[in-house]
Amino acid sequence: MAKQFKRILITGAAGRLGRVLREALKDYAEILRLTDIAPLGDLAEHEEGICCDLADFEHVLPLAKDVDLIIHAGGVPVENTFELILQGNIRGTYNIYEAARQHGVKRVIYTSSNHAIGFYDRTETIDATVAHRPDSLYGLSKCFAEDLGRYYWDKFAIESVNIRIGSSFEEPLDRRMLATWLSFKDFTQIVVRAMQAPRVAHMIVYGMSNNRETLWDNRFASSLGYIPEDSADNYREKVFTNHPPLDPNDAAARYHGGAFAGAGHFEDKT
Amino acid sequence: MAKQFKRILITGAAGRLGRVLREALKDYAEILRLTDIAPLGDLAEHEEGICCDLADFEHVLPLAKDVDLIIHAGGVPVENTFELILQGNIRGTYNIYEAARQHGVKRVIYTSSNHAIGFYDRTETIDATVAHRPDSLYGLSKCFAEDLGRYYWDKFAIESVNIRIGSSFEEPLDRRMLATWLSFKDFTQIVVRAMQAPRVAHMIVYGMSNNRETLWDNRFASSLGYIPEDSADNYREKVFTNHPPLDPNDAAARYHGGAFAGAGHFEDKT
Amino acid sequence: MAKQFKRILITGAAGRLGRVLREALKDYAEILRLTDIAPLGDLAEHEEGICCDLADFEHVLPLAKDVDLIIHAGGVPVENTFELILQGNIRGTYNIYEAARQHGVKRVIYTSSNHAIGFYDRTETIDATVAHRPDSLYGLSKCFAEDLGRYYWDKFAIESVNIRIGSSFEEPLDRRMLATWLSFKDFTQIVVRAMQAPRVAHMIVYGMSNNRETLWDNRFASSLGYIPEDSADNYREKVFTNHPPLDPNDAAARYHGGAFAGAGHFEDKT
Amino acid sequence: MAKQFKRILITGAAGRLGRVLREALKDYAEILRLTDIAPLGDLAEHEEGICCDLADFEHVLPLAKDVDLIIHAGGVPVENTFELILQGNIRGTYNIYEAARQHGVKRVIYTSSNHAIGFYDRTETIDATVAHRPDSLYGLSKCFAEDLGRYYWDKFAIESVNIRIGSSFEEPLDRRMLATWLSFKDFTQIVVRAMQAPRVAHMIVYGMSNNRETLWDNRFASSLGYIPEDSADNYREKVFTNHPPLDPNDAAARYHGGAFAGAGHFEDKT
Amino acid sequence: MAKQFKRILITGAAGRLGRVLREALKDYAEILRLTDIAPLGDLAEHEEGICCDLADFEHVLPLAKDVDLIIHAGGVPVENTFELILQGNIRGTYNIYEAARQHGVKRVIYTSSNHAIGFYDRTETIDATVAHRPDSLYGLSKCFAEDLGRYYWDKFAIESVNIRIGSSFEEPLDRRMLATWLSFKDFTQIVVRAMQAPRVAHMIVYGMSNNRETLWDNRFASSLGYIPEDSADNYREKVFTNHPPLDPNDAAARYHGGAFAGAGHFEDKT
Amino acid sequence: MAKQFKRILITGAAGRLGRVLREALKDYAEILRLTDIAPLGDLAEHEEGICCDLADFEHVLPLAKDVDLIIHAGGVPVENTFELILQGNIRGTYNIYEAARQHGVKRVIYTSSNHAIGFYDRTETIDATVAHRPDSLYGLSKCFAEDLGRYYWDKFAIESVNIRIGSSFEEPLDRRMLATWLSFKDFTQIVVRAMQAPRVAHMIVYGMSNNRETLWDNRFASSLGYIPEDSADNYREKVFTNHPPLDPNDAAARYHGGAFAGAGHFEDKT
Repeated sequence: MAKQFKRILITGAAGRLGRVLREALKDYAEILRLTDIAPLGDLAEHEEGICCDLADFEHVLPLAKDVDLIIHAGGVPVENTFELILQGNIRGTYNIYEAARQHGVKRVIYTSSNHAIGFYDRTETIDATVAHRPDSLYGLSKCFAEDLGRYYWDKFAIESVNIRIGSSFEEPLDRRMLATWLSFKDFTQIVVRAMQAPRVAHMIVYGMSNNRETLWDNRFASSLGYIPEDSADNYREKVFTNHPPLDPNDAAARYHGGAFAGAGHFEDKT
Repeated sequence: MAKQFKRILITGAAGRLGRVLREALKDYAEILRLTDIAPLGDLAEHEEGICCDLADFEHVLPLAKDVDLIIHAGGVPVENTFELILQGNIRGTYNIYEAARQHGVKRVIYTSSNHAIGFYDRTETIDATVAHRPDSLYGLSKCFAEDLGRYYWDKFAIESVNIRIGSSFEEPLDRRMLATWLSFKDFTQIVVRAMQAPRVAHMIVYGMSNNRETLWDNRFASSLGYIPEDSADNYREKVFTNHPPLDPNDAAARYHGGAFAGAGHFEDKT
Repeated sequence: MAKQFKRILITGAAGRLGRVLREALKDYAEILRLTDIAPLGDLAEHEEGICCDLADFEHVLPLAKDVDLIIHAGGVPVENTFELILQGNIRGTYNIYEAARQHGVKRVIYTSSNHAIGFYDRTETIDATVAHRPDSLYGLSKCFAEDLGRYYWDKFAIESVNIRIGSSFEEPLDRRMLATWLSFKDFTQIVVRAMQAPRVAHMIVYGMSNNRETLWDNRFASSLGYIPEDSADNYREKVFTNHPPLDPNDAAARYHGGAFAGAGHFEDKT
Repeated sequence: MAKQFKRILITGAAGRLGRVLREALKDYAEILRLTDIAPLGDLAEHEEGICCDLADFEHVLPLAKDVDLIIHAGGVPVENTFELILQGNIRGTYNIYEAARQHGVKRVIYTSSNHAIGFYDRTETIDATVAHRPDSLYGLSKCFAEDLGRYYWDKFAIESVNIRIGSSFEEPLDRRMLATWLSFKDFTQIVVRAMQAPRVAHMIVYGMSNNRETLWDNRFASSLGYIPEDSADNYREKVFTNHPPLDPNDAAARYHGGAFAGAGHFEDKT
Repeated sequence: MAKQFKRILITGAAGRLGRVLREALKDYAEILRLTDIAPLGDLAEHEEGICCDLADFEHVLPLAKDVDLIIHAGGVPVENTFELILQGNIRGTYNIYEAARQHGVKRVIYTSSNHAIGFYDRTETIDATVAHRPDSLYGLSKCFAEDLGRYYWDKFAIESVNIRIGSSFEEPLDRRMLATWLSFKDFTQIVVRAMQAPRVAHMIVYGMSNNRETLWDNRFASSLGYIPEDSADNYREKVFTNHPPLDPNDAAARYHGGAFAGAGHFEDKT
Repeated sequence: MAKQFKRILITGAAGRLGRVLREALKDYAEILRLTDIAPLGDLAEHEEGICCDLADFEHVLPLAKDVDLIIHAGGVPVENTFELILQGNIRGTYNIYEAARQHGVKRVIYTSSNHAIGFYDRTETIDATVAHRPDSLYGLSKCFAEDLGRYYWDKFAIESVNIRIGSSFEEPLDRRMLATWLSFKDFTQIVVRAMQAPRVAHMIVYGMSNNRETLWDNRFASSLGYIPEDSADNYREKVFTNHPPLDPNDAAARYHGGAFAGAGHFEDKT
């Protein structure tokens, strides 16, 4: 059948998750418009590449032109100074939504993060309705973006799927990721489901693979039809061998956000 | 082993779901007593056939005589005028319960409908405890029947399982049914489980197959032991090919009840 | 200031609560249109009187013409045969809503009843979100009417306030009414608040005075601004003197609906 | 007895609420340190006045020196451009918390706003645990500040009381304020209770007077001991006389945030 | 009118609360049977006095003979060694319920304690449905007694009212008691209401006066009709003068149970 | 890799579940310290055996010396007299926790029981947050132990996993066990997961296999990573053949705890 989308904008296309999407979504849209502040490399025929600082609205606005859907994976990807977070994530995400509004884009898929709720205790199983508990300035910017999406839905009827990414790597890198891991294949699946779902309104969903250990209850997003296929358990022995047991009171064991919750203030580290 | 039931009454036995049960339940009861207002065709040795208008109590009362269990699938099966809904579904279901009471039948299995909660938004995952939100006069009559069953349980200790049927067809017929489909095999299973469960009191359960997309959370009915085996996903490509994407604000995409919620008042259509 | 309403329709205007409203609302509307199946007595200048059987749509339809607001207090007021309940309350309430729809009336205030939730145990404090548990055919018809109002709101944007009347008499008549009593003054207040509230959508509120004992939590209706001023406690000594203590397992002590829950099936009584 | 606090910092001290606090808190601290970007007028003996742009961290940092408690009422007080909201409210509030952290201030009282949850429907009674639904960029910045306070509590043990101010004026100015009004006396009371409470952790409380109509359920903040003494009802007749009834579907009637929710995007207005 | 009860058994009648009841209940029963391990002093004509160790079933059993109602206020009243708690409170309360069962007593009113939930944080407002979080061995024995009462209700239909006493003294003795204080008059009222309520099944209610600060939400016990009349606020200034502000992280400020939660294990103290 | 634990103490090691653990855990610890009041048989090289009455603290204390982890499966395993339950389960479990505290053991895994919540109705699906409803003195002692574990976590930071064992036998023995069965293999798995989880705080989890029928919702323990592999359904036909259908009002059908809930008081049986 014909491709569902004419043109999809992917921000952060040079980042770890952006590169996954760049490869995975080529069958879903006639054109992938890619943007990043970092180099995008050679472009294929179905690709458009635009280098852009998301904090600069003048440059962000045209990104949304003639676009069916935005997948917003750009911004500062880990903890950083408030100034960088403010520019890249807070101002940057506002710019994306405002560009979407001005150009009539009707759906945004956003890579939110478990760090928006990183201060919950590991023994608390939470769903997508719990209050924010950011574990970092980075996590705080994810909270802001989720609320921003809510505002654009309530006021301007722009739909959002906020995917709270757990830990998306080739494989689980430590004991915490046995619970939080999201394989690239499952990440792709959840993005595709968010693209194809007939209606999403403003939805929050946890991005995790089918791990035996889970901290998150995804049932309120069941209309999305996301059913992960990979599992961190296949790496359990390897992780157990390479990583000693955690002290239950260490932040890495204690909090959903792991070390992000335990680390002191960013400025203290510099 | 011996058949568990001596005689089961099936109402609406000439209807789409009634025919499924007529075939599927022959091993569970020595006699299936079948009733419908439409012709029932030839009867097998283990079958009794009685033509009956459910709105007529004089005719309904003897249906329940010497019966172990009633499966009430009769009545008006889609939206219709208030008068027909009132007679076939409201009065008709009252007649069935009252006949059960007078003849000492202790359990009724009722084919309720998703249209009893059809006005919930697709992005809301609901369980069986939510308030009614009927999407039609038809759905309203299902709400009435559920409350009626509650009354007969609280006051007369007659048990009920209310199965809120999603979309029970040979296969999913449109994009909405990717979430709401209930295969005939799974329908049979859930009815059998409702028959065999040691205790059901007054229970509401969603009748859906193991679809990837789901709108309904069945966990409060887990004591029933219903685990669907079919899935609408096997038809996903076919449905995607034949049916264009839905506008997220169309009723068919927006509401649990789909087009029922969107349609205007029945009288307006005539 | 000018009266807020041009014409209010009061059904059941010859009944106990209808008479209270007939007197109390004369300052709120230029014309009170009164209807009942029983005689209405002499009419004042600001009154219109129409004798009508609510079960007859042809007669109900014109009642709603040129009306700003309907207060629907008519129908069978206590337990009765299914046939009478069906005609007076189920068909009758449908007729009222349908007449409202056809004539563009935008708000209906309905005297629902505690008997819609009469089978809850006295030791359970419930709010307006709990599932229906009717204690009688009468209570069942109240459940139907509440769901009907929900349908007309969701589909046709007709607002409803469903006031679940406790026990509205001159004074509390037995020990149960120490909890469920609603004075006529407080009944009037809650109706007026329901009339004046800027927006009610589909709201359920308990109609009770400021009794020390309460079974119902009204907090979800706080936007209505109803604050009762009378209290059953002023009658406590009198009631204690005249009525012996209840056995905690008698229906009158056990259930929200009191004796309605305990009584057997109506037909058994005849 | 001796004053409980040595030095309290009040931001936004030249604003409407800041002026109320400047007058009201003089008995609670030996020194009130006042700051605003606008002129503060003559200073009393117990006052220190510092003109400061909250967006400038270099100037904000010394504000928190030798301070026992911060009452943060500064920033942009109504809807404005994203740029001004970003600087005054997002960056500004971060600067306040960061200054508190660096100077060891242990409690911040923040004038949050109903506009953080302004898109809830008037017929929904909400408590302080519901998800954010900002109705404006202004409301969005209040959401950010609440999450920021949560972060500083979870990570740095700085306590916060977030007072979601309803409508704090001399008297209720329109029909919506019959529900949302907060008198200056009650505002003062809630701030004092937030100052004196032995422990607040990170608390959200609604700032409303004892209005008959209420949209907000404050029970989760009952440990604060705030019991409002004024009521909008004393102004009910006056408001009814001066303001016509609202259409139930107008934003002013429909949403907690009133006209903020209804207004289009700020940029559209310029 | 005649006294409602023939004979009420009060355990712990020589204790602080027992003495209050001995005086207050003389008008409610023809005979008060008083028991304690400590001397009871002179007996009035309407009193029977029996010295008894509650841990000794042979002596406890006859206490319940010919009794209408038991008010069980006996046992170890503060933290103590496990051995004493086990004998006086765990075994002792079992003996009381078992004696009630053997002699057909149908209702027990028990002075439970806030220390059954003493480890909740002061900023959490809890109701009677929350899980136990005992702050001491004493509190643990109160949890046991509440569960024991549940068992005797579910299995033997013996009703219980568990009153979680806050701090019942002549007046509030420290800052924490501004929230937890229960005046003797209010204590008497709640006991009388528990005696007179038509049905209590197994109910948990918080025993607190009408204090401005509250940690507990009593709405689930509203059928009891308890409305406190005293308030700790009348002592607020006196308490503030005599007691310095608390550190928010001290146990006395932090936990519902106050110092009980902060103290180390009992054995450590000996 | 090296064994995770140096020495694990297993109480009740001669009991049905204790013997399963004795065999299953030999690969997880260098030494298994086994204790029971019954004979333990021959000891393997990696085993230490100590005969001990758990009610005797002097003998229990040294059991916890040099131990990494305690698995407490000892005590009276079914309904018995209060005296035996008090000694073996209440005093016994206190002794275990107190020994753990004195010797610095940081985690206890406890075989709690469904009989702690045995009075819930079969048609109620419950999770681990519901209030206790013990069905027996045995179940009551399990409630006590769960609350005791909560106390030792809140006050002394000793972690607990309370596994509410359903019915752990070789195979399901009756119709009720189709829902409650826990295979020995799954029992072993859940214990191992409780041993290896990085942090458990105070957790309650239901111990059941992957049965089609379930009464319990384990989602709040999802961080444990327990995914049962066996299912009672493989025995369904056999059970159906050997056991007739249950009356829905018999205790065995009605309550989570089955016959325990139905049986009268223990003393009545002797």
